[in-house]
Amino acid sequence: MKKLIFMFAAMMFYGLLSAQFAGIQRGQQADPLPEGYKPSSTNLFLAQYPAVNTKTREVMFKVNAPTAQNVQIDIAGKKYDMTKDENGIWTTTSDPQVVGFHYYAVLIDGVAVMDRNTDAYFGSNWWSSGVEIPEGPEGDYYRFNKNIPHGQIRSLYYWSDVNGLPRHINVYVPAEYEQNPNKRYPVMYLLHGWGEDETGWPNQGHTANIMDGLINEGKAVPMIVVMESGDIQTNPDVRQASSNNVSDIYVNDLIPFIDKTFRTKTDRENRAMAGLSRGGAQTTGTVFPNMDKFAWLGTFSGFFVRGDDGVVNAFNGVFKDPKAFDEKINLMFISTGTEERNPKEQVQALKDHGIKNIVFYESQGTAHEWLTWRRSLKEFAPRIFK
Amino acid sequence: MKKLIFMFAAMMFYGLLSAQFAGIQRGQQADPLPEGYKPSSTNLFLAQYPAVNTKTREVMFKVNAPTAQNVQIDIAGKKYDMTKDENGIWTTTSDPQVVGFHYYAVLIDGVAVMDRNTDAYFGSNWWSSGVEIPEGPEGDYYRFNKNIPHGQIRSLYYWSDVNGLPRHINVYVPAEYEQNPNKRYPVMYLLHGWGEDETGWPNQGHTANIMDGLINEGKAVPMIVVMESGDIQTNPDVRQASSNNVSDIYVNDLIPFIDKTFRTKTDRENRAMAGLSRGGAQTTGTVFPNMDKFAWLGTFSGFFVRGDDGVVNAFNGVFKDPKAFDEKINLMFISTGTEERNPKEQVQALKDHGIKNIVFYESQGTAHEWLTWRRSLKEFAPRIFK
Repeated sequence: MKKLIFMFAAMMFYGLLSAQFAGIQRGQQADPLPEGYKPSSTNLFLAQYPAVNTKTREVMFKVNAPTAQNVQIDIAGKKYDMTKDENGIWTTTSDPQVVGFHYYAVLIDGVAVMDRNTDAYFGSNWWSSGVEIPEGPEGDYYRFNKNIPHGQIRSLYYWSDVNGLPRHINVYVPAEYEQNPNKRYPVMYLLHGWGEDETGWPNQGHTANIMDGLINEGKAVPMIVVMESGDIQTNPDVRQASSNNVSDIYVNDLIPFIDKTFRTKTDRENRAMAGLSRGGAQTTGTVFPNMDKFAWLGTFSGFFVRGDDGVVNAFNGVFKDPKAFDEKINLMFISTGTEERNPKEQVQALKDHGIKNIVFYESQGTAHEWLTWRRSLKEFAPRIFK
Repeated sequence: MKKLIFMFAAMMFYGLLSAQFAGIQRGQQADPLPEGYKPSSTNLFLAQYPAVNTKTREVMFKVNAPTAQNVQIDIAGKKYDMTKDENGIWTTTSDPQVVGFHYYAVLIDGVAVMDRNTDAYFGSNWWSSGVEIPEGPEGDYYRFNKNIPHGQIRSLYYWSDVNGLPRHINVYVPAEYEQNPNKRYPVMYLLHGWGEDETGWPNQGHTANIMDGLINEGKAVPMIVVMESGDIQTNPDVRQASSNNVSDIYVNDLIPFIDKTFRTKTDRENRAMAGLSRGGAQTTGTVFPNMDKFAWLGTFSGFFVRGDDGVVNAFNGVFKDPKAFDEKINLMFISTGTEERNPKEQVQALKDHGIKNIVFYESQGTAHEWLTWRRSLKEFAPRIFK
């Protein structure tokens, strides 16, 4: 305790500890949570709230904002007014939420900001708060399992000639990668959705936990998973996004870099691409014109058919000759949540047209959200490279 | 463009695009910046502000908050009132800032929150905004250099028996690590400061860029750098921090995990520890009682001498026999910024007492901040393991 006091004295002396930055402090006892509530797994390690009622799936939020006139929580398209207590702490409890991960915002006098209580999740082009309604025991596949070997997420930059800038990627390598210095691995390129970035799959998606589990159980073959950003920044001095196709970056810069940097199998039978939402559209937009480079693809809530000619004629006619398609593509995996727009009619039309290498998966009870995509990865990964 | 419109339509259909989350949108032209200003390198890729005047070192901030009554910027201990324009955009320009990285907050009607325009930096126990005043050309050592080989930051979890929880670490491995599957490497354990976490050194510190440069120039030997969290969460259901000594975790759980997982040299001559601020105190607290495990240490703005007996008698008497100390410790590196509390008198006292293996470094013009610590790493790393 003496040590703790000393450390605080030192920190205050150095001006690091300023009142408006301070939440709960080290050593301060947190208030007990109401019956049935647990801190969200997304919380910062000193934060009790948001707290999730694991039975009713209601979420209780608290925001420390003594000087604000009006504070609200904005989650799942609904705003909840909060009530202030005598200490300036605002509280509200939401309706029951769907299981899975949800972004949310705090509105301070109408201004949407991040809740200081949670970890930061990149979505809708900013670092946002998130809350997790656990799936229950069946959600163990995306949680850390201390009893199995663990792969690694590697953070690195590569230079893109197409983009003219360094680009950041996260790369999952399986647990056995280090122990087999002469073994080469297949590669899945895994893309996030609109407004997200290359941290989406590692953080919101729990890619490492899902892949560790599938590989440990022998369901998926050991593979490398590359998580890139699907946005293009064209000029660091005038921040703006290009509408150029990201496929050029993936094909010309990213794939050669990965094949140079990691022990990969470099033929098309050992390369897959999958993406969620906009990343699904980027996947079809990248794989179909480059079927000499990919043999597997997945679109998670991202099979967007354009035009009025029907799905068989869409995507520049790639489906027109079903036999030719099946010869090139070993698997086209299409998934959706049951609570969002459902492409099952298009999938049926493709099957009726004669395409065989197609798997359709519906995530029960989920919408356009991360639980749909975690489940999709869990279904997709075991079906490729074998 | 057609494609872009389609994607937006799809996203709005899916309810992802909600007005209060939206900043500058894809394809929207950003306003030109005032003469002499550039976006901070810490900005999100669509954000023009905060913008830094690279000559005067003033920072211009803009905050989109039409419904707020009062908006301020809080940086370097000073609050700046902002002025609202007809579109609800608030603006202010700060005094000239010291070069380097600075945390800051936006106050919305007095409530401190993160600026949505910047990347998220973990400090003072929350995800905070940051701005970077570039050092100029002499700061190239911490920026990405596309012309040299790059190491990797690996993100992984290990199980801590002491803590009873999985703990997250970031581990830098040098560029050549993969190409030498039989080579073993020395390890530096590198600790962050109070209120920060294991992302501090990779993000604010630019560890990978600094190490890549030093190793490429032959100044530092290729080494592994382990970045752990110096905080202990004791119970995931009642979020609180323990005041237990983190040294037990480092010595009993972390070091064995690293030596098992990476190709390390495991003798004391090949193990160093360094830390900034509180991490400096954790370094002396870990290394001095465990000199059978470490031969090198560094404290960056973190050489805290307790008690009134003077430095020679501090730290449980480790310095009392200077010859014995020098036989165990190959280097004790102590650094500080010239604009913060300076331990030069203690350093001189230790030298006068007869301790030889000590190096003192002062970062010119910097205070208790990340530029002091980046420079300290640049000075420390070349001096160890040889």
